[in-house]
Amino acid sequence: MTTVAIVGASGYSGEELVRLLLSHPHAELAAVTSRQYAGQTLAQVFPKFAHYPRARNLCFSEPDVAMLAKQAQVAFLALPHGVAAEFAAPLLERGCRVIDLSADFRLRDARVYKDFYGKEHPVPGLLRQAVYGLPESYRAAIRQASLIACPGCYPTSVLMPLLPLLKAGLIESQGIIADSLSGVSGAGRKAELDYLFVECNESVRPYGVPRHRHLSEIEQELTLAAGTSVTIQFTPHLIPVNRGILTTLYLTPLSQALGSTVSARTRGQKERQAGGEGEATDGIAACYQSAYAKEPFVRLLEADALPDTKNVVGTNIIEIAWRHDPRTGRLLVMSAEDNLLKGASGQAVQCLNILCGFPETAGLI
Amino acid sequence: MTTVAIVGASGYSGEELVRLLLSHPHAELAAVTSRQYAGQTLAQVFPKFAHYPRARNLCFSEPDVAMLAKQAQVAFLALPHGVAAEFAAPLLERGCRVIDLSADFRLRDARVYKDFYGKEHPVPGLLRQAVYGLPESYRAAIRQASLIACPGCYPTSVLMPLLPLLKAGLIESQGIIADSLSGVSGAGRKAELDYLFVECNESVRPYGVPRHRHLSEIEQELTLAAGTSVTIQFTPHLIPVNRGILTTLYLTPLSQALGSTVSARTRGQKERQAGGEGEATDGIAACYQSAYAKEPFVRLLEADALPDTKNVVGTNIIEIAWRHDPRTGRLLVMSAEDNLLKGASGQAVQCLNILCGFPETAGLI
Amino acid sequence: MTTVAIVGASGYSGEELVRLLLSHPHAELAAVTSRQYAGQTLAQVFPKFAHYPRARNLCFSEPDVAMLAKQAQVAFLALPHGVAAEFAAPLLERGCRVIDLSADFRLRDARVYKDFYGKEHPVPGLLRQAVYGLPESYRAAIRQASLIACPGCYPTSVLMPLLPLLKAGLIESQGIIADSLSGVSGAGRKAELDYLFVECNESVRPYGVPRHRHLSEIEQELTLAAGTSVTIQFTPHLIPVNRGILTTLYLTPLSQALGSTVSARTRGQKERQAGGEGEATDGIAACYQSAYAKEPFVRLLEADALPDTKNVVGTNIIEIAWRHDPRTGRLLVMSAEDNLLKGASGQAVQCLNILCGFPETAGLI
Amino acid sequence: MTTVAIVGASGYSGEELVRLLLSHPHAELAAVTSRQYAGQTLAQVFPKFAHYPRARNLCFSEPDVAMLAKQAQVAFLALPHGVAAEFAAPLLERGCRVIDLSADFRLRDARVYKDFYGKEHPVPGLLRQAVYGLPESYRAAIRQASLIACPGCYPTSVLMPLLPLLKAGLIESQGIIADSLSGVSGAGRKAELDYLFVECNESVRPYGVPRHRHLSEIEQELTLAAGTSVTIQFTPHLIPVNRGILTTLYLTPLSQALGSTVSARTRGQKERQAGGEGEATDGIAACYQSAYAKEPFVRLLEADALPDTKNVVGTNIIEIAWRHDPRTGRLLVMSAEDNLLKGASGQAVQCLNILCGFPETAGLI
Repeated sequence: MTTVAIVGASGYSGEELVRLLLSHPHAELAAVTSRQYAGQTLAQVFPKFAHYPRARNLCFSEPDVAMLAKQAQVAFLALPHGVAAEFAAPLLERGCRVIDLSADFRLRDARVYKDFYGKEHPVPGLLRQAVYGLPESYRAAIRQASLIACPGCYPTSVLMPLLPLLKAGLIESQGIIADSLSGVSGAGRKAELDYLFVECNESVRPYGVPRHRHLSEIEQELTLAAGTSVTIQFTPHLIPVNRGILTTLYLTPLSQALGSTVSARTRGQKERQAGGEGEATDGIAACYQSAYAKEPFVRLLEADALPDTKNVVGTNIIEIAWRHDPRTGRLLVMSAEDNLLKGASGQAVQCLNILCGFPETAGLI
Repeated sequence: MTTVAIVGASGYSGEELVRLLLSHPHAELAAVTSRQYAGQTLAQVFPKFAHYPRARNLCFSEPDVAMLAKQAQVAFLALPHGVAAEFAAPLLERGCRVIDLSADFRLRDARVYKDFYGKEHPVPGLLRQAVYGLPESYRAAIRQASLIACPGCYPTSVLMPLLPLLKAGLIESQGIIADSLSGVSGAGRKAELDYLFVECNESVRPYGVPRHRHLSEIEQELTLAAGTSVTIQFTPHLIPVNRGILTTLYLTPLSQALGSTVSARTRGQKERQAGGEGEATDGIAACYQSAYAKEPFVRLLEADALPDTKNVVGTNIIEIAWRHDPRTGRLLVMSAEDNLLKGASGQAVQCLNILCGFPETAGLI
Repeated sequence: MTTVAIVGASGYSGEELVRLLLSHPHAELAAVTSRQYAGQTLAQVFPKFAHYPRARNLCFSEPDVAMLAKQAQVAFLALPHGVAAEFAAPLLERGCRVIDLSADFRLRDARVYKDFYGKEHPVPGLLRQAVYGLPESYRAAIRQASLIACPGCYPTSVLMPLLPLLKAGLIESQGIIADSLSGVSGAGRKAELDYLFVECNESVRPYGVPRHRHLSEIEQELTLAAGTSVTIQFTPHLIPVNRGILTTLYLTPLSQALGSTVSARTRGQKERQAGGEGEATDGIAACYQSAYAKEPFVRLLEADALPDTKNVVGTNIIEIAWRHDPRTGRLLVMSAEDNLLKGASGQAVQCLNILCGFPETAGLI
Repeated sequence: MTTVAIVGASGYSGEELVRLLLSHPHAELAAVTSRQYAGQTLAQVFPKFAHYPRARNLCFSEPDVAMLAKQAQVAFLALPHGVAAEFAAPLLERGCRVIDLSADFRLRDARVYKDFYGKEHPVPGLLRQAVYGLPESYRAAIRQASLIACPGCYPTSVLMPLLPLLKAGLIESQGIIADSLSGVSGAGRKAELDYLFVECNESVRPYGVPRHRHLSEIEQELTLAAGTSVTIQFTPHLIPVNRGILTTLYLTPLSQALGSTVSARTRGQKERQAGGEGEATDGIAACYQSAYAKEPFVRLLEADALPDTKNVVGTNIIEIAWRHDPRTGRLLVMSAEDNLLKGASGQAVQCLNILCGFPETAGLI
């Protein structure tokens, strides 16, 4: 059993980590911290975990780096950005491996951090050491990492469908649009008027237009994949569900993406005449099959199926579907994930499994 | 008092028409039809209208054209497409003016109808006579019309923000993307598994990808406004709210759209240095002011405000906001409306008011 | 036009008052106060009211009693209990009539106030002067009042169905149970974790068990109606809807409540044999007809209909239905109302109408 | 591995059985039937199960008793009442053990079945053989059973908190009231207007008043526990959540239920003076501890905690809390469960575990 700690375990992603780690076959939850709940047991704060014996005797503690490093081999940081970085450095120094769910170590360039997060990075020297915790792209590096920066919820929903296409050169790297719809837990467990039930229920609204912070890591990873600087359009919307992100991507396919060498527009006419789009997206399908057919947490949708957040909520799975539009020549790709699982805590546990050599699905399926 | 009838008054838009017309100061609800509820009073079928005396004595009847034409000067058709056309012709022959909420008379070209609705148009000869019931664009024609085709819910949310920009030549007419989020009432009051509470609640999903029927009327009107053939990308999503449509439009501004003649990209750099986007969208703002400042049912959002369906549900108002993205050079425009009011029954009553010379806001504010 | 002010206009009931009074035919909204929003216009704080010209030029002000008394003939207090009382006294002294939506003047006995609200009443001398603002019971007194204490949301839903039965002696005054289900707006616009979307959505829970504060005014009014001390059981539950209260009452009918003089149990057997309960509740029906048939805001449900909050939300109407259970001998009465309208602001405007001699439905239907 | 079949696997409880049995450590899902989906794989009908290899190769079949009896040692029937009985008899004859989730075998008396379900019982001879599948009450009998009748969702939520109190003689057996709130999945996956999203969302309503079918099995079990005929009052309400039942019980404690021999009313006064209710419910607490402290699926709430459906949804756990009201002398008991798990499919798998000698929590925690 690997001992693990959760620093900041009272928010939504912290709570999900608690749930996953209490029932993980190879991890032992050794410590949970929360300034607010210090002294209370997990079961007192979260009655729904009371049937786990461990939850009845494990108390929240004040976050104490020296103590944590003694108790746990791996520490998960479920803290606000800026705060997480302050814990990472001393934990690493004491030999603890760190899986950070904040934005603090996702960016390679401290100047971009400052540009998007509005302050100097607290420990820029650690950025080089951090591995971006997207297992389907960085599995080998995660295995060797001491510091893992788990991707944001939106970035996961955008990068998973885009990276294979960009790497394979099947789409234009410019002009990409990502339109995302998120459940309210994405805003965190914060007592703010904007996230009251009455303000969110029966409401649909965009926000963070046009420059949401997650753009920084999305564009960093897309640029690396494309081998050229990528700037995208990204619009998040708040939707009255607890969990789930649905992302719709608007892309321009390159000719090799399609089944043959005819132009998209010509193809379109043929397809409409033929009453279907048969092989139009063969290249796309082959690319996704190659990238994801063996991935346990990616579901490539077949036939008429389109992503639906209700089919992934509660799981670490991301669904992906795609359609070529013969009328416009565009390629549409859609993804659905649970923002708290594949978009946060589930992916963090997936990283733990890789890091520690456990089966990658341990505690997740 | 003008006598009015509602043919097909038991669906969601029919029910909203009932509500609006029961309390309309210049209209008298003379007849409501429903095969299912024939013989029952309005109050029996919709207890929530029981406090209107008229609802306690007006019975649903079988739809009988001759009778309807005697009872009502104006008939609203809240019927499925295909069925509406069968009622329109005989009602018009008998001197009744018709306000149709279906798709049957929205298209000028019967071939496009066949292409998108999958069957021959039942009365193509009437298409020339019909006026598209978007008051802000066709007010004068509505005043003279005998047959009004009320726009669809999605088309209203897309056309209202786009038409002024296209007419003024402020945006590229090609490459337009409309990403729309709709409440479940848009699917109608139909007993289908897909629209059960449990299937929609805690679910977010795209549908009708990539060729939704509403494209036909959207592109017809955009083409007329642009003076050149327009093909757009349109993706609807189903969202767990009862009512409301939120549309996000991705547009390419032409240089005259912005405050000066510098290119979008150069402007972008200036704006970011200046810490704001000040006059960047002056041209857009001026265009919308010119088009809509005096319109009672258009709310142009100022300062930081973005559209939110909860601010328009229950009203006939459409909210519009816009942002220039200096990073990508794109223009984003967002709209919010109540799909059953500005997107259907409210707009239909707005048309009635124009047609009959009532104050345009009568019964609507 | 009567000039009115709203003191504390930024909460949910304050916002509803704003909406009702902006469109009231006989009232002019002269002042709105809010410490938080002082200096901003109504339209800036609530964009959804921006189509009212008055909302674009009326600014929130700091609450200043002397100024308010000059500006308004009637002041609505939409303030927390304890705070409201501090405003009422000086406003009354300056000749302003006061309609208070808080709990401060609902109780006749300052000791009961202290017992349930945990502190001494700030101005006990005013309690005698206050009229309980339940129009269907106190219409004549409201007409003469200077200080009106609007009933709480739960009390309205409990008292409206109970008072006629108790006054007519049709039910036992002891052993009454009221089980209530409320939408989340009942908790007010407060930034508290318990009322976040994620905490309320997909959650159903009791609270305030077994001694909710509203018991104090409910029992006061029931005791007055019954002529003997009444203690009831009351259990509120929080339900994931924005608005609406559904109350189910469990009562013991006295023999005169039923259609004849046979005992409830005997009747029950006869009814079951007869396959229906025919005249079993004739006495109840007659009582409600007598009390409420002419009331514009009470809907007595007929035949098979049962109350449903969706049929009253957005209106000032309360629905009432009843059933005799021949198996147990009990009488069940159910009511549904909009907690922010008949349960708060709508009823307050109803009181205004009575107070000022306007038609009682002015601005409400 | 025990081979199991699910007959009628396309409804909500069937779908939950599929989910539980696909990941059950000791059961192999050998067959699933559905007339509607025959020939399609589980993964095609329920994409969310596609990551289970078994779901990709197991096809729905037409229900064929002879085939099922060959394929499976245990058959779950997730069929409408009336239909289930037709399958049970021939399956039993062929040596298959049957776990029925319908109402067909819950009642011991065929006359009561006819009275509540409106038709003659199809195989009354089997009623004697059936064991009521409430493990906490009938564990020993379940172990020996060939035919298990799983309790209804409401009955589980009512019986679990009531049975220990009645058996211990701590409450009056007469005058019991159960007020229940259920999520919409309780209505099943049926295409009916009443359960459309728009009809249920933002709606709270009672139904089945005053004589819901589940009364029959509730009263049967209460009568057995009390040793005297018990008739209760039961009112279900439909609440806009997908899952979850919250039941509030109104009870009359007998003197031995409380901590000492003083009367409830006297105690009440003492408690209020003392500012708490200290030992008032000691007898109740002791009773529940004795009955449930070792039960893996019962959570007795401590301190201030009250049941909340969101803390049990997705689990097989039922939460129970209780309060003595010193003002009325009543005992309030509240329970929360997932209507599809502890109220249906989870309990059915719990019965399977007992029947087959597996650990009782296998596949459930």
